[in-house]
Amino acid sequence: MDWDSLWFNGHAATMATAAGPAGVVRDAAVAVKDGRIAWIGPRAELPPGRAAEEHDLGGRWVTPGLIDAHTHLVFGGNRAREFEMRLEGASYEEIARAGGGIVSTVAATRAASEDALVASAAVRLERLLAEGVTVMEIKSGYGLDLPTERAMLRAARALGERYPVTVRTTCLAAHALPPDYAGRPDDYIGLVCDTILPALAEEGLVDAVDAFCERIAFSPEQTARVFDTARRLGLPVKLHADQLSDGGADGGGAALAARYGALSADHVEHTGEEAVRAMAAAGTVAMLLPGAFYMLRETKLPPIDLFRRHGVPMAVSTDCNPGTSPAVSLLLMLNMACTLFRLTPQEALAGVTRNAAKALGMGATHGTLEAGKAADLAVWDIGDPAELCYWLGANPCAAVVRDGRLVRGGV
Amino acid sequence: MDWDSLWFNGHAATMATAAGPAGVVRDAAVAVKDGRIAWIGPRAELPPGRAAEEHDLGGRWVTPGLIDAHTHLVFGGNRAREFEMRLEGASYEEIARAGGGIVSTVAATRAASEDALVASAAVRLERLLAEGVTVMEIKSGYGLDLPTERAMLRAARALGERYPVTVRTTCLAAHALPPDYAGRPDDYIGLVCDTILPALAEEGLVDAVDAFCERIAFSPEQTARVFDTARRLGLPVKLHADQLSDGGADGGGAALAARYGALSADHVEHTGEEAVRAMAAAGTVAMLLPGAFYMLRETKLPPIDLFRRHGVPMAVSTDCNPGTSPAVSLLLMLNMACTLFRLTPQEALAGVTRNAAKALGMGATHGTLEAGKAADLAVWDIGDPAELCYWLGANPCAAVVRDGRLVRGGV
Ligand SMILES: [Zn+2]
Ligand SMILES: [Zn+2]
Repeated sequence: MDWDSLWFNGHAATMATAAGPAGVVRDAAVAVKDGRIAWIGPRAELPPGRAAEEHDLGGRWVTPGLIDAHTHLVFGGNRAREFEMRLEGASYEEIARAGGGIVSTVAATRAASEDALVASAAVRLERLLAEGVTVMEIKSGYGLDLPTERAMLRAARALGERYPVTVRTTCLAAHALPPDYAGRPDDYIGLVCDTILPALAEEGLVDAVDAFCERIAFSPEQTARVFDTARRLGLPVKLHADQLSDGGADGGGAALAARYGALSADHVEHTGEEAVRAMAAAGTVAMLLPGAFYMLRETKLPPIDLFRRHGVPMAVSTDCNPGTSPAVSLLLMLNMACTLFRLTPQEALAGVTRNAAKALGMGATHGTLEAGKAADLAVWDIGDPAELCYWLGANPCAAVVRDGRLVRGGV
Repeated sequence: MDWDSLWFNGHAATMATAAGPAGVVRDAAVAVKDGRIAWIGPRAELPPGRAAEEHDLGGRWVTPGLIDAHTHLVFGGNRAREFEMRLEGASYEEIARAGGGIVSTVAATRAASEDALVASAAVRLERLLAEGVTVMEIKSGYGLDLPTERAMLRAARALGERYPVTVRTTCLAAHALPPDYAGRPDDYIGLVCDTILPALAEEGLVDAVDAFCERIAFSPEQTARVFDTARRLGLPVKLHADQLSDGGADGGGAALAARYGALSADHVEHTGEEAVRAMAAAGTVAMLLPGAFYMLRETKLPPIDLFRRHGVPMAVSTDCNPGTSPAVSLLLMLNMACTLFRLTPQEALAGVTRNAAKALGMGATHGTLEAGKAADLAVWDIGDPAELCYWLGANPCAAVVRDGRLVRGGV
């Protein structure tokens, strides 16, 4: 046999830039061998060959498997009661007194066993996988101590082993100041740099390092210490930057991220043109998180036109987290990226495929349908790729193929 | 046997007003007989009796089956390409030239067979039913001629027969001016009043009559003609009112609706206090449609505080339609009602249960868990009812019971 499987009689939005905005190939064929795409193109040009399995797409569309490149999927508890209290008019102090805020998630996460963390995250993960997600990033950051940061990252790895999804872990120990370090942020950053990061990296649990650079979190200097440590450990970095302000960094948090050659600068609502230029030069992806923008009723839009003008790739993710974006639908984020941020559907789709792969340092192997790349396919019951961004709450995913194997649905 | 089934070891948000805001009964039992709730209350107070089936809820929550009381679920085609064109910067004229707008949906609906209308709506319906919906309203309004308005309402009835859902039909022939009546709105209203409504009512296809009273649609006088016809036919009315303006009616479209004792006034973003008072006096429900508000990026909020102050019941629906709210998730609407309109989770839940039933004239039989009402139950994998409003894109529905029969999932 020449190929393990052949997929035909459908249309492909390859998302490969060479073939136009969404890289559309009508009446396409995709030949798969050893978990990779062996050939993709118009069916009429398919070279001769035989496939062990043939799948008639019945006129459906195929895209790359979707990539959710910024999530805090693993956490204990949830913050529904805090959500309710706020809507019932409770003040910040009342919510804090009731144990609300990130502190409550840290407490619930520390109290949960690793198995419990896997089980609660699995419910959210299954929802995302049903929408054609084949690659996920999962961050730590609700432990803020070595044992719980470890448990979170081990839970993330376990999810990647038990479910048909490629998981990339990110250590976000520098997410917030743990209560036990109140007033001593530099001491906590010392713990992160001297103990937590080296230990977890040594254990093979860390694919990348993230930090939260914001007036309410860590300073640019503290963030730089974390990034220097990551560099020493040979780990790529990314940054929660410019969500609420420019974080006090020279040129903004995104500029700091660019100076360290970060994979992505995330949120970036308050990023200015100088920083956008630096991101473009560094190849740093702008990670747009419309779920948090929506839930927080933010009004400051990320500088989409600047990203366009300077050629900064834009990714779109759920930011799935219990406080500001309890979102478990990447398709809904596509709609929000279009409706709230005014991305075009093609830009939004690139944001959960090609550019999301780039944000995870996986651009060479994932994110587009091209020969040589992983055979991660999502098959859709739609008449046009724009439908993936248009519906609110629909899920037209008919089948998912990961590494060449059909892992969900069927055609 | 005393009961057909007994549901126990869970908590109930009965939504019955007597028992506090969400009518919560912890450690509840629900006894069902002949499709109705025979008894509901704290399990410890369950009267002696035997049930043919016993269902252990395993600590889950039970609510009334959800009610989506304002939908345009049946339509031909979709408007994803128009959505895309607008985001790509196309002007109104360019979209119109490309055949966009409601005209395109009218054309696609007229071109579709009744079976095709059922099939395309069924995909959307299944999505809603998976979230615990047991009662749906479905409007006509994309035919704008007798045969197609009939086909839409017949499709709606067919959905109610084929799926475990109670469908209430609404004739919205006065939705827009059909192209063939351009410049002759009064003639078209004549067709609606003299031909379409009487014929379809005679055929038993119409449970209620709706109209679109807006500067871009029909005038208050034309709306009144439709309502007078409905009254003559013995049909209840409701109104798309005050979405974009006060519609030119004296006191606004909602006031006009109230004068006719309408079941609901829908959208109501621009409704003023005088009209709110009239709605309260008439028992007219304020139907909130946050999906359209979100998709159109409206900024004028409905007068929630006035509705609260004057005791106007608020309902929440998807407004599922291809132009302004392609929404097939009622749970997402709960989140949007809270996030965008600042409803409390308890108000939002009442909006898809108790008040939605009232908006359909079904308050006596549906919308709360009380003895004597239909045994329509949704069972949820949640720790608190607020979770139904908190997640974005989750679906914690574990089981659905309709008229006493388990129709989805299981516990
Ligand atoms: Zn985040
Ligand atoms: Zn409507």
